[in-house]
Amino acid sequence: MYACLCLLFLFFTIFAEATYPPGGFHHLSTLRQNKKSSKSKSELPFETRYFPQNLDHFSFRPESYKVFHQKYLINRRFWRKGGPIFVYTGNEGDIDWFASNTGFMSDIAPKFRALLVFIEHRFYGESTPFGKKSHKSAETLGYLNSQQALADYAILIRSLKQNLSSEASPVVVFGGSYGGMLAAWFRLKYPHIAIGALASSAPILHFDNIVPLTSFYDAISQDFKDASINCFKVIKRSWEELDAVSNMKHGLPELSKKFRTCKGLHSIYSARDWLMGAFVYTAMVNYATAANFMAPLPGYPVEQMCKIIDGFPRGSSNLDRAFAAASLYYNYSGSEKCFELEQPTDDHGLDGWGYQACTEMVMPMSFSNQSMFPPYENDYEAFEEQCMSKYGVKPRPHWITTEFGGKRIESVLKRFGSNIIFSNGMQDPWSRGGVLKNISSSIIALVTKKGAHHADLRASTKGDPEWLKEQRRQEVAIIEKWISEYYRDLKE
Amino acid sequence: MYACLCLLFLFFTIFAEATYPPGGFHHLSTLRQNKKSSKSKSELPFETRYFPQNLDHFSFRPESYKVFHQKYLINRRFWRKGGPIFVYTGNEGDIDWFASNTGFMSDIAPKFRALLVFIEHRFYGESTPFGKKSHKSAETLGYLNSQQALADYAILIRSLKQNLSSEASPVVVFGGSYGGMLAAWFRLKYPHIAIGALASSAPILHFDNIVPLTSFYDAISQDFKDASINCFKVIKRSWEELDAVSNMKHGLPELSKKFRTCKGLHSIYSARDWLMGAFVYTAMVNYATAANFMAPLPGYPVEQMCKIIDGFPRGSSNLDRAFAAASLYYNYSGSEKCFELEQPTDDHGLDGWGYQACTEMVMPMSFSNQSMFPPYENDYEAFEEQCMSKYGVKPRPHWITTEFGGKRIESVLKRFGSNIIFSNGMQDPWSRGGVLKNISSSIIALVTKKGAHHADLRASTKGDPEWLKEQRRQEVAIIEKWISEYYRDLKE
Repeated sequence: MYACLCLLFLFFTIFAEATYPPGGFHHLSTLRQNKKSSKSKSELPFETRYFPQNLDHFSFRPESYKVFHQKYLINRRFWRKGGPIFVYTGNEGDIDWFASNTGFMSDIAPKFRALLVFIEHRFYGESTPFGKKSHKSAETLGYLNSQQALADYAILIRSLKQNLSSEASPVVVFGGSYGGMLAAWFRLKYPHIAIGALASSAPILHFDNIVPLTSFYDAISQDFKDASINCFKVIKRSWEELDAVSNMKHGLPELSKKFRTCKGLHSIYSARDWLMGAFVYTAMVNYATAANFMAPLPGYPVEQMCKIIDGFPRGSSNLDRAFAAASLYYNYSGSEKCFELEQPTDDHGLDGWGYQACTEMVMPMSFSNQSMFPPYENDYEAFEEQCMSKYGVKPRPHWITTEFGGKRIESVLKRFGSNIIFSNGMQDPWSRGGVLKNISSSIIALVTKKGAHHADLRASTKGDPEWLKEQRRQEVAIIEKWISEYYRDLKE
Repeated sequence: MYACLCLLFLFFTIFAEATYPPGGFHHLSTLRQNKKSSKSKSELPFETRYFPQNLDHFSFRPESYKVFHQKYLINRRFWRKGGPIFVYTGNEGDIDWFASNTGFMSDIAPKFRALLVFIEHRFYGESTPFGKKSHKSAETLGYLNSQQALADYAILIRSLKQNLSSEASPVVVFGGSYGGMLAAWFRLKYPHIAIGALASSAPILHFDNIVPLTSFYDAISQDFKDASINCFKVIKRSWEELDAVSNMKHGLPELSKKFRTCKGLHSIYSARDWLMGAFVYTAMVNYATAANFMAPLPGYPVEQMCKIIDGFPRGSSNLDRAFAAASLYYNYSGSEKCFELEQPTDDHGLDGWGYQACTEMVMPMSFSNQSMFPPYENDYEAFEEQCMSKYGVKPRPHWITTEFGGKRIESVLKRFGSNIIFSNGMQDPWSRGGVLKNISSSIIALVTKKGAHHADLRASTKGDPEWLKEQRRQEVAIIEKWISEYYRDLKE
């Protein structure tokens, strides 16, 4: 399987024909958020600005000088001139949405008297260099990649500091998921601009076979197994039942009915991807308290899903149970009358990740026999073909590790890096591609057993467990140390 | 003046109209080498290879996948599998030429049992992505820049190590001048690929007004003043005499005769640039022993030039003396019957630097009143206009400092960098933009008072002075330390 994932949620898969005919791309943009899921933009305590950015920083062809307007959010309420600047290195979506879900930065800004800046990633949200045509083809999308994004951030930060006459302000970068990778890489490549990085749930080792290809789905399976062995078994058995339906006469209409689809299904794989999406994303956001990041969900939603599965009477269909569990993810509010399995929405401007996954963000994945997913062995050639057919470009699977470091990245960081926090929660399958052990006295891994996808970056809530509060306290203490060291060095 | 220099020699200037009508670009490709200047290619103990390289590493547009063949030279004679790999990060010219003039690497290879690799910089020598059309316009030249070059080196080195089954071999990068900047930047941006860098005569501080704009020409003036105050004064006065000729009736034919030009001069400025070039380049290559890098010259050629000037009878014309001194540079062999002042040759594939100087390598310069050159204040707008008119692109004067670090680069290196030698010789005007003091225990400045432009990288000769031998001994000892530390870490 090629789960080129979206770090957050956008998640797309290729099944080789041998395993799952007819094969092909299975976009699993399962993100059917409750429209009220994100805090509405007007509530954000930020001023919205647009920065004129060059299209291509690494070429000087005439086209590279084309200017687009990169959106960023700024909050000066707590800032004292010369004080720290906290920058969120935006990832694959609307920056407002990330700002809404990164309350940690706003929570700690008063203590640090910090300026808050959230920069939108090029080609996402409103920051589209070619307007509505931005995602039309590889010709325009070609300018979408992590190195261009990092250069955008460097240039914007430099300009902002100059305009604020605060060139000496220390900058700390924050990011979650792909944004966490960007924060860590920014610290590595632009140490003259950022004094430190909080890289939350950043799977920088998820490239070029550094971690086992099965680790991601094995981790999800483990989450469900930990919640209930029966639950794990039910899900594992449900795929066979799903296959059986596909072999039935009138299988698709039957399945459409069972899955309460708004429109009749065209493919059995839509149902499979829809189920998988629910399990994958629920494991990722298996937060300790009720939250509404990708969808409104109760605290520890994996446990809740398993309670639904385990609550069925003995002898119930595994597929019915799996459907009921998935409905928690898609319809926790209970307001959905039917499900759109084949018409995924994109409320957060996420389109673009598919291209990144087909070019630089190549993260091959397999399903092991031990996982609760149907066994599948990664087929790189099929993936490459799909990318060629969809975008007309070939992936560069070794590029990220060439540019940012590969297998030996941890020893390189130990000797040459500093001031990075890698925070991970082991509920989150992405944690398996993260840095889970301290690398040095200033490259710190903060790992929580019960944490989920960048849980630490979320705003604090009354119900937060002690381990989460402690993780955030440690982060604050480390950032304080970076800043005070910076000011001390500056005086010298 | 905009001496966008070529770090080595290609050197181009803009005089504002107010100062030197009619103004405009004055290409001073004074490189009229004796055709026998470089060691002929066949004598080099290297195998020539070509590596298929992507045109654009930082974009995924279909065009970016265009493959060109990057030339590199390899010498395996001394290498033991798993042993160190010494890579020269090519700069603005034929790689054979740099290999011929970087004998230090060959000299030390047996001691280290090192593999030697010299990689040609894209768009120079034979490594032209669009063949003869490569330098036609900004459309093709746009892919010529330092970041693309660094990525080329990263990809080539990774592939080479894989092909040699020596992934764990330590790589040390070497470079002189612009190549030295590339070596230092490579160490900063790709610490996972190179364990250390010897950056010789690398003026990484020569950007964005970090060093005074007058420093380069002041340093040259100092070299001549140190050789002889009279010599300095004669050259300083010669410009007025040159101006006076231009105001004469039949001034140009007169000057053509005086300067023994092969063809009649079209502009007084050709004569001025020709003279300046001789003084600039001779100061740069003011080596202790006879050498033949840019032109065949005796040891300490600045002193020799001044002896010529001082040897004229009292009352001789300053311009005649300046011409005679310049002739040492252009005609040390005595074989030139006339001089081509307006038809510069490009025997070393150097074309391309003009474009780099007009895009990223923006190094503004002025002539101070204290220098031996005619006073001139930098005019950025005129420079920008010239770049627009010549290449149709605008310079990005802050880009290099944004990408690689600016004013605070030294403190950043102190905290976050390691394993770089910055070697400089104070005879070389570029040394003023170099790192001249130790930054940390592993970022070392090796400065010699009497050294010239990357003198340390040249092959040892019998006549080498003790200070040069000592500089090289220190370099070897430091590189030995890096390598032994690397192997020790690897064992752990």
